[in-house]
Formats: sequence, C-alpha cells, structure tokens
Amino acid sequence: MILVKLGGSVITDKSKIRTFKRASCARLARELSRSRDDLFIVHGAGSFGHIEAKKHELHRGFKKESQLEHVAAVQRDVRELNLKVLETLIDEGIRAISIPPAAAASFKDGEMVSFERTVFGRFVAIGFVPVSFGDVVPDESMGFSICSGDLIMEALAEAFRPDLVVFCADVDGVYSSDPKRDRKARLMPRLDPLSLRSIKKSESKHADVTGSIYGKLERMLAISRHCEKCMIVNGNVPGRLEKVLRGEAVVSTVVVPR
Amino acid sequence: MILVKLGGSVITDKSKIRTFKRASCARLARELSRSRDDLFIVHGAGSFGHIEAKKHELHRGFKKESQLEHVAAVQRDVRELNLKVLETLIDEGIRAISIPPAAAASFKDGEMVSFERTVFGRFVAIGFVPVSFGDVVPDESMGFSICSGDLIMEALAEAFRPDLVVFCADVDGVYSSDPKRDRKARLMPRLDPLSLRSIKKSESKHADVTGSIYGKLERMLAISRHCEKCMIVNGNVPGRLEKVLRGEAVVSTVVVPR
Repeated sequence: MILVKLGGSVITDKSKIRTFKRASCARLARELSRSRDDLFIVHGAGSFGHIEAKKHELHRGFKKESQLEHVAAVQRDVRELNLKVLETLIDEGIRAISIPPAAAASFKDGEMVSFERTVFGRFVAIGFVPVSFGDVVPDESMGFSICSGDLIMEALAEAFRPDLVVFCADVDGVYSSDPKRDRKARLMPRLDPLSLRSIKKSESKHADVTGSIYGKLERMLAISRHCEKCMIVNGNVPGRLEKVLRGEAVVSTVVVPR
Repeated sequence: MILVKLGGSVITDKSKIRTFKRASCARLARELSRSRDDLFIVHGAGSFGHIEAKKHELHRGFKKESQLEHVAAVQRDVRELNLKVLETLIDEGIRAISIPPAAAASFKDGEMVSFERTVFGRFVAIGFVPVSFGDVVPDESMGFSICSGDLIMEALAEAFRPDLVVFCADVDGVYSSDPKRDRKARLMPRLDPLSLRSIKKSESKHADVTGSIYGKLERMLAISRHCEKCMIVNGNVPGRLEKVLRGEAVVSTVVVPR
C-alpha cells in the first residue's frame, strides 16, 4: 500500500486564490494511474483554503460570530478543489472516492483525538482509492478547527502502515536553508530528527494555517515511524512520482525516524 | 429545529442526467434563509445519482469489478450537485456545512446500522446549517450501497427530534392515485398508515434506486414518529416552503404516525 500526498503548492497556485493547476494535477493523476499498488491519496487545500482561513483565523477556532460565514465559504471552496482532484483522478481511470477527514476522525483543541479506519478500509478492500484532504472540521472544544492534509496523512499511516509514503512538494526535497533565498542551500538526501535541528529557519511567503515547514517536517518524521519508507519528491518534475512508485531512485529527501 | 428535504425532483431535472435546477434551488435557499429556526437540510441526488446508479445497479451492492468505476463516477457527480446546493445556500447567507452520510453513519445489507449525531450536533451548536445528501456509501456486507436522502432524514429526525420536518416535492402532496395519469386523483391533506394502504399503486417513470413512492411514504410515516409535525409540500410553488417555515397553513399533506 502506498500513501501519496499531493501538496497544495503542486495542485494549486498558492499565491492566487482558488487557482487549480489542472495540468499538474492531471499529470500526477496519470503517473498515479500506472501504479499497481493499493493507493491512498491526500491533497492539501492550497489557495482554496489557506488564504481565507488565515485571513479569518479559522485555525484558532471559534472567536466571533462573523467567522462562521468564512468557515462555510472555506469548506465549500475546499470541496470545489476536492471535486476537481476527483475529476482528474477518475479521468485517468483511478477509482477515487472522496472521504473528508470528519468522516473518520474527531478533533479537540485543534488535535485529532480519534480516528476510525473503517470507512477508508471498506472502500480500499473492494478496490477503491480513498481521497482525503485538508479541511475545516468540527472541534469539541474550539467549535471548529483545521485538519491539515498532513494530519490526515499521519492518521492514515498509523492506521494502515503503508509500505511507502510520498509527499509531492514544489521543491526537490528538504534543503539546508530556503533554496528560493539562499544560493548556498543544499538538498538533504536524508532527514532525521538530528538533521532537522540543523536547518536554517525562514518564514514562508504564502499563507499557511497548518503550521511552519518545521511543523510539517516534524510530522513527516512521525509518519516515517509508521511506514517502510517515507520521502519528499518534487511533484512539479514530470515522471518523478511515477519513478518513485515503481521503486526507482530519484532526487528526493528520504525521511527516517532516527 | 426544522429539518428540510430538498427533493431531487425539485433541485434537478430527473429526466436529464446531471441537470441542476439552479433557479428553483436558489429560490428555496432564499425561502430557507428567512427562517429564524435552527435548520438541517438534506437533498436528494436526482439526476446526478439515480440514472447512473440504476443503470449499473449500484443499490444492489458489489456484484462485479466493472461497477467500481461507476461508483466513483456517481459519488463524484453527487458531490458536484452538493457543491451547487452549498453554493446557492451560502449565496443566500446560510452557513451551510456539507456532511456526507458516511461521516456519521455506517451501513450493512443496505440498511443504516449506526448513526453518530456528534458531527452534525457540533456544527449546529455553533450556528451552522448541516447539509447532507443521498450518496453511495461503504457497506459492511455489500461492499457499497446507496444511502437515500430519506434514510439520512430519518436518522436525523430520530437523533434530533425536530419540531418540524418538511419534504419539498414536485407535487402538492400525496394523492389518492398518480395525479399525472389519473384525473380523479385527489390530494390527501393527511396521510396515516391506514390511508397509505388505500393509495393506488403505479410505477414512477424516472429512475429511482431508493425504492418506490410507497417505500418513501413508509419512511415518512416512520419520521413522523420523531417530530412534532411532518409534511410534504410542493417545492416548485414559490413561497410555499417559506409559509410552512413561518407556521402558516398551505396546501400540503401532513403525515401522522396513526
């Protein structure tokens, strides 16, 4: 079983609200369709979620009445993106079934407090490819909160123990510093808890309500404990995902728990 | 609390595949937006679901591999309709939140075997309007099956005991025989288990995988046991839903458990 994350920065233009990168998503769908393994797919919300969620501080939960219309708008937008992703996957012959995180998980204080694998498991057992996504979710203490795509990735990895977990990002992997700002940045072929501490910190220029890159890397380290292999590859380079799915070596960062 | 079903025959053209009746849905959304009560909304799948589901016998569960692509296609189509409904509701200022049936219920042998009210309850508690819909769902024994909008209506009625349950149909209510074929058909202002037995049976001309009209009426009778008042009104007549929501008398069939 292979668990694949289609990063919000790969399938959407993170700088322009609600902009789907259909060609990129369709190419990744084509690459996925050639896999013979059981697949689970998770996608980020990209500019269908983060921009408005950040503006109205939806990740902090219920603070004031006026947020509610924005919660409704964001979950609608995220479902629009999910529908576009479903469409591109189905067009490539993938039997994609949409499962929002709240269909399997419950949340409290912005954390996932339970995860029920059954809904996913039943669909996979008869040959479907579940597709989940970052979403606004009900939260026991905060009213609502954000479940990131990475959080649902972690829950799926823990529940199904995949052979391979692949994060498709808009960069070749993890760098020693921000490659978009620092010419000396070098790609790290391997990331472990020790090397994570050596990475130079910088702020992302795009809205992201699901935490910093370090938070994401911490989560990837946690995920790497639940699978045979966990890696980050560049989803913008044609063929790279496909090669990884075939077990071929590619430019990437492999994440290891220690 | 008021639970409203937007019938598939009111918000879609049941004779033409994937045809949304935007104007009808927008008008009903406007009428709903004037209500001061807590609302729950459920919509049918109409021609976004039934036509393909019937063609490939999805309501009978997994029979052969070739059904799977149609399951994927139908759930995608139903989500497209749900997105359109969300859109029209949000445009009228309703804080609509999509909750697919599989987020709260589990299924076996085509029946709902458990229903967890929490996901719906949490969103309602802070001021949202949950919107659920008829859908293809995972089924413990059949692989997949169909959860009709009426089935999720029954689960919601049982779990939340609404003051009023309103079914918006494309007719004024329940008739003694098919009003589209029989000139002597008369509207029944009141339906109970006894009067149900007196209705002349005829077949619907449109695909419907969720059972006959009698099955639907049986379910409405069951629902009427869980609420103060249960009624069927014509959703195609402007203002009728709005009047009902205000407590005014309208042409309708009131469904009573005995």
